[in-house]
Amino acid sequence: MEQRHLSLLIFSGEYDKALAAFILANSAREIDMSVTMFFAFWGLTMLRDPEKMSLEDKTLYEKMFSVMTPAGARELPLSNMNMAGLGKGMLVEMMKESETPALVDFVRGARHKGVNFKACRLSMEVMGIKQEELLPEVEVVNAMNYLEDAMQANIQLFI
Amino acid sequence: MEQRHLSLLIFSGEYDKALAAFILANSAREIDMSVTMFFAFWGLTMLRDPEKMSLEDKTLYEKMFSVMTPAGARELPLSNMNMAGLGKGMLVEMMKESETPALVDFVRGARHKGVNFKACRLSMEVMGIKQEELLPEVEVVNAMNYLEDAMQANIQLFI
Amino acid sequence: MEQRHLSLLIFSGEYDKALAAFILANSAREIDMSVTMFFAFWGLTMLRDPEKMSLEDKTLYEKMFSVMTPAGARELPLSNMNMAGLGKGMLVEMMKESETPALVDFVRGARHKGVNFKACRLSMEVMGIKQEELLPEVEVVNAMNYLEDAMQANIQLFI
Repeated sequence: MEQRHLSLLIFSGEYDKALAAFILANSAREIDMSVTMFFAFWGLTMLRDPEKMSLEDKTLYEKMFSVMTPAGARELPLSNMNMAGLGKGMLVEMMKESETPALVDFVRGARHKGVNFKACRLSMEVMGIKQEELLPEVEVVNAMNYLEDAMQANIQLFI
Repeated sequence: MEQRHLSLLIFSGEYDKALAAFILANSAREIDMSVTMFFAFWGLTMLRDPEKMSLEDKTLYEKMFSVMTPAGARELPLSNMNMAGLGKGMLVEMMKESETPALVDFVRGARHKGVNFKACRLSMEVMGIKQEELLPEVEVVNAMNYLEDAMQANIQLFI
Repeated sequence: MEQRHLSLLIFSGEYDKALAAFILANSAREIDMSVTMFFAFWGLTMLRDPEKMSLEDKTLYEKMFSVMTPAGARELPLSNMNMAGLGKGMLVEMMKESETPALVDFVRGARHKGVNFKACRLSMEVMGIKQEELLPEVEVVNAMNYLEDAMQANIQLFI
């Protein structure tokens, strides 16, 4: 009867933080926790389907935003700007060498394992991101929906 | 009898993260959750009242810090340094276009709705910020007070 | 009988965030909370023992990573890149002036007070960090172990 639920609020749009979030989500499913990932602000960029990007019906700022931000998980930059020479390419190579799956593999895993994907409606309105640009199983909700779900979780993290 | 309490530790001093925090705080009050926001380190800069900044009784470093860091919510920078052209001005314009209130409106909302504001004493001592420079309802507490409150919360986030 | 447990996931490798984490860990021990700190990604760099760094048995990328990332808590950079002139040296001076202990003191305090240190196995494999390079009491675990421990905690934070 014990409830086991993980709630992740994904605010950041960076490769390494997304990796941490999706590794947690996959691991939680493997120990029978239900998982909700709520994507807001920069986090929304990793839910975009690169095939479905559209510039129609967008204001000038929304078009600029669409073009300048990453189109999907593969394009996310690295969070850590402090390590001069250490770029995302190097991290990706190091992951290959240690036979660690890439971010897109962890995203695919989370989708197959039934992780719940939610997108923040207000962020989408501000950034001009439309539901049809996102992965099809994403549900668009608001901050109150997030809070009601997170209150039921054993673990809540802001990433 | 069910307790509904949200605890936010605001460490970051950036416009977009502050926005996320204050949207969560306002939304939580709308579904009858009590809310405590504990501001530490860079987060303290958004509690400053721009009218009340003072350089008196400060060491040289504290004066430099006062002048170089944002004086209140309006001046916060953007967290995401990766998107070359995407500045805070653009985000603020996009928020206006989608008729989203600005950060200062969400701060005002949180104050009116009875969100509890706490400031970290140790951070204030290190940064040379005095209580009279902050919004008047801010209570100065320590990390142990934060933990005791957060333990009673259904949701705790580090932002 | 009341359980009081704090779970910190340390993802970031920056001086100010590490300071926040270790101040929380020390404060929690002072009010009789048990504490687990789980270090992943950049967070692992602060667990390194500068005396024990080794380049043996490492790939080229792992060697580059070893040399370019901080060797222990003392070398961590500052998270906030937005404040032009405000560097880590200035923060360290301001801490001295207010007679606040340095990060290494808080790390020492956490070790003496029985905080549990865990390191993420997958991150270590990707980054080529070996157990013998870390502080001796660090236990190497995986994300599922982290989740099981965090589920028992009253407070979980991602830092």
